[in-house]
Amino acid sequence: MSTTLDTTTSDDLGVPAARRRSAELERSIREQPGGFRALTGDRPTGRLHLGHYFGTLHNRVRLQNLGVDMMVLVADYQVLTDRDVADRLAEHVEDLVLDYLAAGIDPDRATIFTHSAIPALNQLLLPFLSLVSVSELGRNPTVKDEIAHSSQSAVSGLMFTYPVHQAADILFCKASLVPVGQDQLPHLEVARTVARRFNNRYSTPSNPVFPEPEALLSAAPLLLGTDGGKMSKSRGNAIALAATADETARMIRGAKTDADRHITYDPVARPEVSSLVLLAALCLDRDPHEVAEEIGGRGAAALKAVVTDAINDYFAPIRARRAELARDRAHIRGVLREGNERATAIADATLREVRAAMNSLY
Amino acid sequence: MSTTLDTTTSDDLGVPAARRRSAELERSIREQPGGFRALTGDRPTGRLHLGHYFGTLHNRVRLQNLGVDMMVLVADYQVLTDRDVADRLAEHVEDLVLDYLAAGIDPDRATIFTHSAIPALNQLLLPFLSLVSVSELGRNPTVKDEIAHSSQSAVSGLMFTYPVHQAADILFCKASLVPVGQDQLPHLEVARTVARRFNNRYSTPSNPVFPEPEALLSAAPLLLGTDGGKMSKSRGNAIALAATADETARMIRGAKTDADRHITYDPVARPEVSSLVLLAALCLDRDPHEVAEEIGGRGAAALKAVVTDAINDYFAPIRARRAELARDRAHIRGVLREGNERATAIADATLREVRAAMNSLY
Repeated sequence: MSTTLDTTTSDDLGVPAARRRSAELERSIREQPGGFRALTGDRPTGRLHLGHYFGTLHNRVRLQNLGVDMMVLVADYQVLTDRDVADRLAEHVEDLVLDYLAAGIDPDRATIFTHSAIPALNQLLLPFLSLVSVSELGRNPTVKDEIAHSSQSAVSGLMFTYPVHQAADILFCKASLVPVGQDQLPHLEVARTVARRFNNRYSTPSNPVFPEPEALLSAAPLLLGTDGGKMSKSRGNAIALAATADETARMIRGAKTDADRHITYDPVARPEVSSLVLLAALCLDRDPHEVAEEIGGRGAAALKAVVTDAINDYFAPIRARRAELARDRAHIRGVLREGNERATAIADATLREVRAAMNSLY
Repeated sequence: MSTTLDTTTSDDLGVPAARRRSAELERSIREQPGGFRALTGDRPTGRLHLGHYFGTLHNRVRLQNLGVDMMVLVADYQVLTDRDVADRLAEHVEDLVLDYLAAGIDPDRATIFTHSAIPALNQLLLPFLSLVSVSELGRNPTVKDEIAHSSQSAVSGLMFTYPVHQAADILFCKASLVPVGQDQLPHLEVARTVARRFNNRYSTPSNPVFPEPEALLSAAPLLLGTDGGKMSKSRGNAIALAATADETARMIRGAKTDADRHITYDPVARPEVSSLVLLAALCLDRDPHEVAEEIGGRGAAALKAVVTDAINDYFAPIRARRAELARDRAHIRGVLREGNERATAIADATLREVRAAMNSLY
């Protein structure tokens, strides 16, 4: 698909290089997919929406189907400071797993697991924290952002150490790939730094414990919410993967457009209309310019009809699968149990290696 | 024994109350020792010296022998930022266990274990970090001290989060007692705060997951090094538990005294002489004033002879046991393995409870 927005700016130093490297990696994946393991995941804050689907989930299923070993983390320890979310943790986790399975993550090939069930993964936080200074933690863009947006007394120790916990997520399974958007490159850099420092300190150069993970930059489509703002469940402007056809139609009917009747695809000048066009194009696997051209002078109502049908057609089988899966909670729990067992075996093996390298197998 | 220095000052708010409570606890322990579990431990930085022995180890053996369930932690993840120590980790850990066993810690009654072997203990760091803010972490006296004495870039994330890791040490085994000196009261306060916040947030008032641990203040004797400074292995002024009789005699011979030939026990006016008198009194289980009086005008040489004999007599069986144990490294490793298994079972059970309380058993 060429249906993506390029959001590169000249300020993004390092991004062009990461982009070039990602293109190389894509070629290598196609040649030898079994040589790659990717770490991906989400915080379980509720049902996923179409932004999540076309932004990351679709790409994960693609990588899985190419043959990449996918590790899919439900980051249930990274939502604890949001009390509303934490109070409904089990429900949010099951919803997330349902979305994964419905979207095509195959638990026979991918490993779906939760932080809370993998002690050996979490233990890695300790030796890794010894390799990172307090000032480095404070400089992390996400952490800085969090501190800027709230008082320091509201920033928990968990948030402050979050990039190092994420390094543990990536390194416990020795992921070679981390599919990310460019704003997440700094996070991956922490994991790479931790791997390098651990290897320098505790392993021999010929036999490093941790491979340095690489970013697989995905050019995520920029989908806006139905109000023209950032798509987000909490703003009520996002269509859930699990929405019904009627709910979808209602939300698209209420979507913001503009005064120009003639539909075009011009994300900069006409963000709201273009986002709707892009959504239809993604569902139809077509070029958004073509989609816009076909609607042409028939206006926003016609555009909305096209978008609604496109979404509902594309997601019908996914939604049907989700509804079916939702009737069998025992199956969902079984998927998690099996994923957690697999992740535990991987984490235990890595921790044994780490303890041997650190000379702490007594 | 009344051979202790009272170091209370009027600045130590809360200390008199903690002292009164500790006296009550001592009475309860004697009545029902089986009702108490105590968490104690050390960073494995080398062989223990007489300051450690009379400061904490002796008290641990006393509590064990009264029937308190002793958990003895070898904090091997809390020495990682000291490269010299970390490079000889296994050796330091074994030395520490040897000192424990020689001093009378009985592995059939006490549980000796290491951080690195108990993933479920370490996992508790994550939910606990969500209950403590960055500014609270920065206000901890030990952490503040560390930041003041080095640049912030030298303070690791591990040091910064250390009080919360210590809360995990205390709470994973639901210790009711933590024997501490008064300077460690703030640390215990973090553990108490974490327990309270966790209970408030995740458990019902009638069935809290964590008991709030209590400080058992021990009035540790103030023993100085042989140069009159703070006793510390790194200053070369400390007599190791494992020192030979000759090494002990040599170090005491070189100990600093003062110009007054008549020996008295006066810790404020004559700290070096009084520390030697106190050391002899501790080994002889006598009152230091009496010890000093008996030596009287015979001077420093006589004092040193008394101290040397007292130490060597007292520690002879301990040192003999240590030498014998040191010949059987497999035994030491077996003790640790068994302790780690016991601590793992406790930690796993607590983690299961924690996960159930947090609604994260999927």
